[in-house]
Amino acid sequence: METVSKSLSCGGVQGVYRHSSRETGTDMTFSVFVPPHAPNTRLPVVWYLSGLTCTHANVTEKGEYRKACAELGLIFVAPDTSPRGDGVADDAEGAYDFGLSAGFYVDATEDPFASHYRMWGYITEELPALIAGAFPADMNRQAIMGHSMGGHGALTTALRHPDRFRSVSAFAPIVAPSRVPWGEKALQGYLGNDRAAWRAHDAVALIEDGARVAEILVDQGEADDFLVEQLRPALLSRACNDAGIDLTLRLQPGYDHSYYFIATFMADHLQWHAARLGPR
Amino acid sequence: METVSKSLSCGGVQGVYRHSSRETGTDMTFSVFVPPHAPNTRLPVVWYLSGLTCTHANVTEKGEYRKACAELGLIFVAPDTSPRGDGVADDAEGAYDFGLSAGFYVDATEDPFASHYRMWGYITEELPALIAGAFPADMNRQAIMGHSMGGHGALTTALRHPDRFRSVSAFAPIVAPSRVPWGEKALQGYLGNDRAAWRAHDAVALIEDGARVAEILVDQGEADDFLVEQLRPALLSRACNDAGIDLTLRLQPGYDHSYYFIATFMADHLQWHAARLGPR
Repeated sequence: METVSKSLSCGGVQGVYRHSSRETGTDMTFSVFVPPHAPNTRLPVVWYLSGLTCTHANVTEKGEYRKACAELGLIFVAPDTSPRGDGVADDAEGAYDFGLSAGFYVDATEDPFASHYRMWGYITEELPALIAGAFPADMNRQAIMGHSMGGHGALTTALRHPDRFRSVSAFAPIVAPSRVPWGEKALQGYLGNDRAAWRAHDAVALIEDGARVAEILVDQGEADDFLVEQLRPALLSRACNDAGIDLTLRLQPGYDHSYYFIATFMADHLQWHAARLGPR
Repeated sequence: METVSKSLSCGGVQGVYRHSSRETGTDMTFSVFVPPHAPNTRLPVVWYLSGLTCTHANVTEKGEYRKACAELGLIFVAPDTSPRGDGVADDAEGAYDFGLSAGFYVDATEDPFASHYRMWGYITEELPALIAGAFPADMNRQAIMGHSMGGHGALTTALRHPDRFRSVSAFAPIVAPSRVPWGEKALQGYLGNDRAAWRAHDAVALIEDGARVAEILVDQGEADDFLVEQLRPALLSRACNDAGIDLTLRLQPGYDHSYYFIATFMADHLQWHAARLGPR
């Protein structure tokens, strides 16, 4: 693991790191904020999965999470959203919603994506092992959150690892990728035409199929241009209601899909996670 | 004035605007955050001048000022750092420290810069008039701050307009451009070889020549790569001490020159300004 940059911020260390990934077969870059802490202590970890077009850098620069993480004693990990580099296939037309920056947190089975697009294994296995070894992380206290495509990733990861994550939240998540254009394009492209295989990467379908978490926090801007066609939070509401999952869905009047929205509610989410991750 | 973008954030409106500038003869872009406020009220204004390589966007995205401005009821204005566009001269070798993104908040007198590089008139006259007319700004309550080259701009602007600004602060400012490489290159390039003319754009020289403000707040990272050669806060300390100006110079161990540093102390500065701008 190579250190790309390190800066003191809010009393902690904001670092950017690069490593050669076994899962993706590429170099992968991620950022980690470690808050100020006493020597020889281990701190809870919040995972943040980013949305379409993003790298680790968007939330690292615009997410406004460091002050809250410093106060609450949370490590904040922000991975990339796809493999990158020579030989990594992209959308045939270079569209923003598939291929580079749009890995959708799945392990692709379709060529030419199967060889590098292994974001599920990367996020759920390889990177956690790296974080556990290289940072003062208490891997028994993990939370996960994300935005848009990353909200999808956070929800599916938490639903499939209910014993690993003590809490899950999302900003404007894609809750049912099987039923919306962004998700249908991605899941077909990465996983093929068999829609049964898509259900393991669709939060609403996972809940319908019996996956459970105790509770979910979602903030959704009502002025979000993608609300009606791509995000459809009502599908998550209905599934959670039917399944007895305690969903706190906050529709925020006037807010859009941008980091101006995310930054507004970031501290709320971190406080919500910290309360469930146990005392510092 | 044209609206480039507008997003709700922290209950207020973060906008980006563009207008045709009489001073620079170019289109100029700036950002304004207007916090939530009661109808028909006018709010104090904090000006933020940015550093080398920056546009309005750097602080708008990375500055983490909106939450504090919303709580304190402050309008936050972030101008660009130079004219831009067709026909605007740049550094002969495209260096980052002169020309585009490096206007140094002066009205150039030297060709080929004199025709567009009029950032002093733009920041001190043209843009204030635009802000006063287009936003709910109380121009009797103004503060100014800046980073690096923008710290230089904030200090010189406040020292030359002591009745306009109730407070001034800076992050890692260039305090004595006449005596450091960045400043010598810029002042010579824009103003020519007569060093007497430079003194009106050098905070330490202005103080030596009798300009006064009541107090100044400066945060300076001790791990800032530019500290010793370009920033030299001790020169400001000595000038303020000799002049009876109450300088609060906070040397921050471990902090560098980046927005990770600025964001860490942004809320401190805004609270300091709010306390001097009077009650909301």
